[in-house]
Amino acid sequence: MKKPLILVSNDDSITSKGIKHLVDIAQEFGEVLVVAPHYPQSAKSHAITIASPLRLYKSNQFGDHIEAYSCDGTPADCIKLAKNHLLKSIDRNQLPDLVLSGVNHGSNASISVIYSGTMGAAIEAAIEGIPAIGFSLCDYDHNGELDHTAELMRKIIKNVLEKGLAPNIALNVNFPKFNGEPIKGIKICRQAHAKWDEKFDERIDPYNGKYFWMAGDFLGLENAEDTDDHALKNNYSSVVPCQYDLTAHKVIESLRGLEL
Amino acid sequence: MKKPLILVSNDDSITSKGIKHLVDIAQEFGEVLVVAPHYPQSAKSHAITIASPLRLYKSNQFGDHIEAYSCDGTPADCIKLAKNHLLKSIDRNQLPDLVLSGVNHGSNASISVIYSGTMGAAIEAAIEGIPAIGFSLCDYDHNGELDHTAELMRKIIKNVLEKGLAPNIALNVNFPKFNGEPIKGIKICRQAHAKWDEKFDERIDPYNGKYFWMAGDFLGLENAEDTDDHALKNNYSSVVPCQYDLTAHKVIESLRGLEL
Repeated sequence: MKKPLILVSNDDSITSKGIKHLVDIAQEFGEVLVVAPHYPQSAKSHAITIASPLRLYKSNQFGDHIEAYSCDGTPADCIKLAKNHLLKSIDRNQLPDLVLSGVNHGSNASISVIYSGTMGAAIEAAIEGIPAIGFSLCDYDHNGELDHTAELMRKIIKNVLEKGLAPNIALNVNFPKFNGEPIKGIKICRQAHAKWDEKFDERIDPYNGKYFWMAGDFLGLENAEDTDDHALKNNYSSVVPCQYDLTAHKVIESLRGLEL
Repeated sequence: MKKPLILVSNDDSITSKGIKHLVDIAQEFGEVLVVAPHYPQSAKSHAITIASPLRLYKSNQFGDHIEAYSCDGTPADCIKLAKNHLLKSIDRNQLPDLVLSGVNHGSNASISVIYSGTMGAAIEAAIEGIPAIGFSLCDYDHNGELDHTAELMRKIIKNVLEKGLAPNIALNVNFPKFNGEPIKGIKICRQAHAKWDEKFDERIDPYNGKYFWMAGDFLGLENAEDTDDHALKNNYSSVVPCQYDLTAHKVIESLRGLEL
């Protein structure tokens, strides 16, 4: 049987610890192609690059046996370039069987999914009908411990390769920060209602010009047991199936009065 | 009665024709504050700027009687800076009553909502609990005719100011390109299933280096009557209520087998 083709990307850039961890695990399951950002692309959401060109650089980041490229665009650009250029032009004309993104250094649970470049790549794959998983670790330290996630990552990847996913769905998988104990297990969740409470740090540059740096705190607005936020607080890994239909179907009826 | 405070942004930048049209109409309904990108930010989705600082520039783009600023970040950055800095620091400490974004030069219907900076600003407002409307014109010409949209824009803005919106909802409003006839009316819709079929234009720079430019065609995957794409093709304006909960609730049950 042919090995599945697994496309790997992320948003922290091709040199991050998280993508190395993901590539190591992915190659246990299939042939790996890496197309990941050349520069960090945190919080780039689903942005794509249309007003300027893109470059693609061959990378030896994962050794000679893994085909890898960095791209100077966003995570969603990486998926588009892989699918529409690399996998068309290098004589194989195939779709990836699975797209994996991450492991992100920092939570993408709850409201953070909206801002996440990691999930931008995964959702881009879902738009193309390719099963996709975004992995994130709730630890902003770019050298954070990742070993405690490996067993659950294997379980989830194996399950998705064997059973597939519903059409146009990407999984948003978050792991709790290592606390000395193994993760208790996996909870299938919905995205918790929350927001970021931003403060802009006002600073003065060396030329007496004012600038602002965005900073903020995560503000949970619920603590229901079926949410990703709740699972992670209790040392479970959260898995949220994500879609790209933003339509608030339940609200449609209440707007009918607007029609002429 | 106090006039409502209307925050206006967009993604085509503060100098675009579309935002001038929107400001002209918005000021019929309330006090207008403009915070819009300094540089074009098309397709920036819900990206925010965390790895570099932001600048804010006072603008006289709309004359002396309209308070306006440009920001060198994304549309979502503009909303965050307005809410968390400008509206806190200039002695009024208030939330906008309404956020308006646009008018975008180009469609944000169907799958384009995912990539849209215009809708990034509107959805950012929805996260903050502020009623929000993103307006887009299905005409990529930045000098495209806008007069045919004015009457419907007034109707929609008036309706939302009077009745509000369901909590955390932003409207994605698209207008058909001017075809010589008045727009037939408003249809409340869902987002049509579609994707972009990208082709990367491969080019050589003056130094013999290879670069790529993303181009593509919109590929509709359905033509159901209740979709925004269908409404626009029939010279109606489409209104899609949008949410930021990406959870595919219907898929949750089918994933329970993953739980340990």
